[in-house]
Amino acid sequence: MQHCYAVKVYYEDTDAGGVVYYANYLRFMERARTEYLREHGIDVPRLHDNGMFLVVAHLDISYRGPAHLGETLQVTSKLLETKAVKATLRQQVLRDGELLVDALLSFACIDRSGKPLRLPPAFAALAASEA
Amino acid sequence: MQHCYAVKVYYEDTDAGGVVYYANYLRFMERARTEYLREHGIDVPRLHDNGMFLVVAHLDISYRGPAHLGETLQVTSKLLETKAVKATLRQQVLRDGELLVDALLSFACIDRSGKPLRLPPAFAALAASEA
Amino acid sequence: MQHCYAVKVYYEDTDAGGVVYYANYLRFMERARTEYLREHGIDVPRLHDNGMFLVVAHLDISYRGPAHLGETLQVTSKLLETKAVKATLRQQVLRDGELLVDALLSFACIDRSGKPLRLPPAFAALAASEA
Amino acid sequence: MQHCYAVKVYYEDTDAGGVVYYANYLRFMERARTEYLREHGIDVPRLHDNGMFLVVAHLDISYRGPAHLGETLQVTSKLLETKAVKATLRQQVLRDGELLVDALLSFACIDRSGKPLRLPPAFAALAASEA
Repeated sequence: MQHCYAVKVYYEDTDAGGVVYYANYLRFMERARTEYLREHGIDVPRLHDNGMFLVVAHLDISYRGPAHLGETLQVTSKLLETKAVKATLRQQVLRDGELLVDALLSFACIDRSGKPLRLPPAFAALAASEA
Repeated sequence: MQHCYAVKVYYEDTDAGGVVYYANYLRFMERARTEYLREHGIDVPRLHDNGMFLVVAHLDISYRGPAHLGETLQVTSKLLETKAVKATLRQQVLRDGELLVDALLSFACIDRSGKPLRLPPAFAALAASEA
Repeated sequence: MQHCYAVKVYYEDTDAGGVVYYANYLRFMERARTEYLREHGIDVPRLHDNGMFLVVAHLDISYRGPAHLGETLQVTSKLLETKAVKATLRQQVLRDGELLVDALLSFACIDRSGKPLRLPPAFAALAASEA
Repeated sequence: MQHCYAVKVYYEDTDAGGVVYYANYLRFMERARTEYLREHGIDVPRLHDNGMFLVVAHLDISYRGPAHLGETLQVTSKLLETKAVKATLRQQVLRDGELLVDALLSFACIDRSGKPLRLPPAFAALAASEA
């Protein structure tokens, strides 16, 4: 069962072109993966309070179609792979089954000085359960 | 029964001070009042598609306390008064009963050229039900 | 001589209504007052690095007219008054002399725990010079 | 001579991790390429007013290092290639010569209904001049 997070489009998300602004899908994706990770025992705000920050290192994103004011979108998240200090995630944004945005991103965990930290063990467990 | 809309704080909402950025409460408030109005028969995206735009004319907002990453906030909305072309709304942001933001705002309905339009009749009905 | 900061409107600032989104003027105003204060010896990032945060406590803002993609706006800033722990600022957004947004805001200086701090002495000097 | 656009980091751009939020580099990049294109005869707001919208179709972005409050960043833009309906651009964000963000993006020009349009001829001229 794919993790699915619902997002509704408000004026704040749109631009004068009448569609969702391209950077705002990254906000939707952050919300969705925060909930995805939380449901699998990885609490981003708690990591934050302990001086551990998940940061996106690389993002490859394709914009296939526009979304509009008032629409409800679905954001899926799936951990593909995890290594000692890096994890790879696939996220997609859909509207009623139609693929609008397709993204692959890798992220790392760092401390406040920017030094890479080992990812919490729950990542490996999650990757195994998704395999 | 006060209308109450829940918002969760993600990284996108915060700033380097470690708290929610002051402009982002206006985004939370827009989400909350869109849902509030929709539940009372005023569908903002449908108005938009018909060339009717609700725009904030005046906002008075007090910031009483900060909100942080991972917290869940409650945004209340209540229509106080409605006239031919202007309505007044009270919105508050709370965290478990503690008041963080207190706002009074008035808005109007305009067409694409900026000309004021009569507010839809559902506003008067809503104001009466809230009285 | 009024301090004046130029802002150009990009897609990121607009919404599906074809105009600048109401919360984004608060971003413009933050940029403008940061430069205004800096030119008068109050360096917001340096205060930040020293654990002193300027936070908006109250904002009263009137939206008089819309701004559009590609327009250049002028944001004026003027410190009206300063007390031990609170300062009052007037900021306006104009387009070629036409007033679009008129705002009055008060802010305080706090430490990381939220405790109010005395405003740096440069505020009193600035208020005196603006009188 | 590489086109270079300066951006200053304000609170609005940062998050609770103390660094620029990952989606906000996309805003910086939009500002930079709008100015880059304008200086080469491609006026994005004028295209918009004529019902022609430049939209990002694909983005590949690497985050190499963080940026902080008060820093001034440089955003470079260079058109790599242009075809009938698609152009490829390289954009980088640097701080005093240090590479922070490296991005490759392709975009298309569409009408209000989403139909692809031929790119204005100035794109081919720009690509030739950059070769």
